Amino acid sequence: MFERIDHVGIAVEAIEPALPLLRDTFGMPVVHREIVEEQGVEALLLDVGENHVELLAPLGDDTPVGRFLRSRGAGLHHVAYQVTDIARTLSELKSGGVRLIDESPRVGIRNSRVAFVHPSAASGVLTELVQPAPGH
Amino acid sequence: MFERIDHVGIAVEAIEPALPLLRDTFGMPVVHREIVEEQGVEALLLDVGENHVELLAPLGDDTPVGRFLRSRGAGLHHVAYQVTDIARTLSELKSGGVRLIDESPRVGIRNSRVAFVHPSAASGVLTELVQPAPGH
Repeated sequence: MFERIDHVGIAVEAIEPALPLLRDTFGMPVVHREIVEEQGVEALLLDVGENHVELLAPLGDDTPVGRFLRSRGAGLHHVAYQVTDIARTLSELKSGGVRLIDESPRVGIRNSRVAFVHPSAASGVLTELVQPAPGH
Repeated sequence: MFERIDHVGIAVEAIEPALPLLRDTFGMPVVHREIVEEQGVEALLLDVGENHVELLAPLGDDTPVGRFLRSRGAGLHHVAYQVTDIARTLSELKSGGVRLIDESPRVGIRNSRVAFVHPSAASGVLTELVQPAPGH
């Protein structure tokens, strides 16, 4: 059901100052960049093996990532696990009584299908499920 | 240099209450459990594909994970990347001026060799480098 860690999401004030360490020093290739207006966020994806690091910068203060930065500062924001069939996984989690933020999948970056488990069900960890689009 | 995400570390008050979601619902096998007196922590490792989730419970309040829990509550604590030659990676990071917590590797769980990059150098993210012991 759970294939691997898809990515860790890191909340930052701005993408550019966070890039040199990951891209140049750690040598992680940048593979995608996308503004997600609906989520109030700019996302940048770097590869590390079959996993990714996702930098998230808020489009404004009154956005989920903007509020996270105000209360906690920059740092780890969420972890995402890759699943093969997100609809089936969500249905299993629902029947297991796991508290979800998203009861059904929505579109994530690179046309993935994603859903979030509520942190209260996961030891305080905002937990994302990702079913990548074919080819990713 | 960076092979994959080795694991995410999750700080919890106690291991047992955090286990059912990861082990039973998410189906991640428990592969290791170790008390690290020197770090004041009990660590439990679960597999997710080639990656891991590491649960960290403090042995007391006056430990790094104990203090983390007091100030931030349970949740994501660090991310670890797997490297093939940690001594070489540390030497490259030092010559690049990256602020390190550990200038030379120390022994981690399962006889891995580990070192931490300072969060101030990594967008607030406590970042670990791991060279697994042969066979892991």
